[in-house]
Amino acid sequence: MNAAGPVTMLHLGDLALPAIWLRDACGCAECRYPATGQRLVGSARVARLYPDLAVERHAARDGRLTVVFAPDGHESVFELAWLEQHAPGRGARLGDQSAQARVAWTATDLPVGPPRVAWDAYLRSPVAMATALGAVEKLGAAVITEVPARPGMVLTVGRSLGHVRVTNYGELFDVRVEPDPEHLAYTGLALAPHTDNPYRDPVPTVQLLHCLRAAGAGGDTTLVDGFAAADRLRETDRAAFDTLTQVWLPFSYDGPTSVLTCRAPVISVDDEGAVTQVRWNDRGLQPPDVAPDRIGAVYRALAAFGEVLDEADLAVSLRLVPGDCLIFDNTRVLHGRSAYGPTATGEPGSGGRHLQGCYVDMDGLRSTLEVLRRDGTRAVPTQAGPAGRGRAPRVVATRASARPIAAAR
Amino acid sequence: MNAAGPVTMLHLGDLALPAIWLRDACGCAECRYPATGQRLVGSARVARLYPDLAVERHAARDGRLTVVFAPDGHESVFELAWLEQHAPGRGARLGDQSAQARVAWTATDLPVGPPRVAWDAYLRSPVAMATALGAVEKLGAAVITEVPARPGMVLTVGRSLGHVRVTNYGELFDVRVEPDPEHLAYTGLALAPHTDNPYRDPVPTVQLLHCLRAAGAGGDTTLVDGFAAADRLRETDRAAFDTLTQVWLPFSYDGPTSVLTCRAPVISVDDEGAVTQVRWNDRGLQPPDVAPDRIGAVYRALAAFGEVLDEADLAVSLRLVPGDCLIFDNTRVLHGRSAYGPTATGEPGSGGRHLQGCYVDMDGLRSTLEVLRRDGTRAVPTQAGPAGRGRAPRVVATRASARPIAAAR
Repeated sequence: MNAAGPVTMLHLGDLALPAIWLRDACGCAECRYPATGQRLVGSARVARLYPDLAVERHAARDGRLTVVFAPDGHESVFELAWLEQHAPGRGARLGDQSAQARVAWTATDLPVGPPRVAWDAYLRSPVAMATALGAVEKLGAAVITEVPARPGMVLTVGRSLGHVRVTNYGELFDVRVEPDPEHLAYTGLALAPHTDNPYRDPVPTVQLLHCLRAAGAGGDTTLVDGFAAADRLRETDRAAFDTLTQVWLPFSYDGPTSVLTCRAPVISVDDEGAVTQVRWNDRGLQPPDVAPDRIGAVYRALAAFGEVLDEADLAVSLRLVPGDCLIFDNTRVLHGRSAYGPTATGEPGSGGRHLQGCYVDMDGLRSTLEVLRRDGTRAVPTQAGPAGRGRAPRVVATRASARPIAAAR
Repeated sequence: MNAAGPVTMLHLGDLALPAIWLRDACGCAECRYPATGQRLVGSARVARLYPDLAVERHAARDGRLTVVFAPDGHESVFELAWLEQHAPGRGARLGDQSAQARVAWTATDLPVGPPRVAWDAYLRSPVAMATALGAVEKLGAAVITEVPARPGMVLTVGRSLGHVRVTNYGELFDVRVEPDPEHLAYTGLALAPHTDNPYRDPVPTVQLLHCLRAAGAGGDTTLVDGFAAADRLRETDRAAFDTLTQVWLPFSYDGPTSVLTCRAPVISVDDEGAVTQVRWNDRGLQPPDVAPDRIGAVYRALAAFGEVLDEADLAVSLRLVPGDCLIFDNTRVLHGRSAYGPTATGEPGSGGRHLQGCYVDMDGLRSTLEVLRRDGTRAVPTQAGPAGRGRAPRVVATRASARPIAAAR
């Protein structure tokens, strides 16, 4: 053991290891429940219990670092390879869902649209399922093909990968030409790329659109990667980018049975400046109620981002055919469509384009994907089944665990 | 009409009215669909169509302002009283859900807990319903009393005010002592105040806890207003507050059938610095993987906020009795409980404390409340009913509307 006096920062080669962080990351049976790795003493508890924590002695051998802390003599052991990856500043960012951890794209990257996986393979093969869900996670979009073109199947797809999020639009919604439409979606008119429900906080995170019938002509789907567009705006017009990330704007929807309002930035960024969300829907946005001296900058920024989003090389076009179920990240990917003709009568069910949609939660999709990755070739999990019910909505522990009350924090 | 040359900012008394904002707010039939007030031309479209917009002439009389724009001669009419309230910089902030728009509290403000409304009155009276939901909106918590103490009723309450959010814990979850608990929630141990599911992004926004059976002794519920605590931290330790708002920390949950991770700040603020969310659950937080030079500040800040959250004058204590359904904003209000003894056998159903919980979306709750306010004494809306189904998940328009394609943005 090296005893170079108590230090609050242990230097080991190019590793800088704060004593309190080491204690916080300790995996011993007093600090984490052995069977599950769940925390028994949390970070804030560590910080309050040991404000003057230091490394008293340490030894590195056989790929392991052993540390003894002052003042209490607690001993921790770490794999050096793990420290190389996970120590502060080594670049690991657990839970990162920003543009930095994902893959931006333009039209040339996805010439025939997002990755496609057949429904039958998706159901039978964890590899196929992980391919589809991995595409939604990394690229923001995937298509599951050959889903039976029956009403309600979109909910079956949604439940296979996460949890359906019910909104005022119901559990599922129909998108088709209606004779007396209350929404633009229910016409044959073109829709410029947008994100759904910007007036909702949180917005629906994942959207599914299942094609039951295609239009005779037109009705093609357009997708734009909002992360790629936001990064292009940052490169070409930094002032506009800064305005749209810094100023929160009002969004609202005022319908017969729902009134929804929220404030949010058009582009959200994390603590490293990476884009985490794009909210773009020009009819949900209301006149900015910000200070008069910021008004000019806000409109200039909206115009600039609108121009970028219209740049042709950003838009991926695809034609959904019956059975295709498009899945996309509504916090990132904008969707639109080209115009299409109604049928002769314009009646529902008369043979025109008909999609069914629903929203699901991204956290459930990412969890399903992580479990597939963790458990490898085991059977595909069915999250919504009985095994998932009745579990506590809290951090996990056992009654027998050490220091359970501290752990409960 | 006053024709003082085209101006991009119209000054009228103490009102400063940017020309482009006036055009954006225009309520004429070309700009908004008359029947519903929905936008036909959005803010970004206005900004792109009229980069050099100015007010050519204006006249204020009989409580109205009439404006004629250059270059296109469009005419808009506004109520002056509306402009006084809603013009940029007048203080209106549509959709504000931050601490600034809500009411912070400490123990002395709510000596017997959050406002209480009887279930029977809630069902029959829009005033009673708005009282309960208004308390959740403004204070972050309310109790509905005398809800029949039957399993599953928590979902009935949840559906009465919004949409139930299903998670990996199911549609509803039971909180009681179990003989072989996998979660601390299923023991009789004390739980320090926390928010649920910090590892989920978005977190569940509203939580319901319905008491079916109370404990013989103990098991009292503790609530802490996270907004009040965060503001106290800002006053007493600005550096800690800044660290917790600026640094995104990793949260995770690794269970048998779910793996959930995200990054988020402990305290979220909006563009005016007002607190919008608190995320506090020491076992969901993982060792901070931030730059080594920020580590010390992060732990100091966690310790400081932990100390504030423990200050006795912040905690409201209440005892849920059978029939009580506590509803609280999980993005703001921390909940905990005191320890309680298991029954002789510790078996479920043997007479010990038993709560059932579920999550619902705050957007639905706020919408229900807004519709009650808008429609006054009309019947209480049932959002989940057939009227709410099949509506398009998009901004609203009609096929006959002017400029529909521009509007679709």
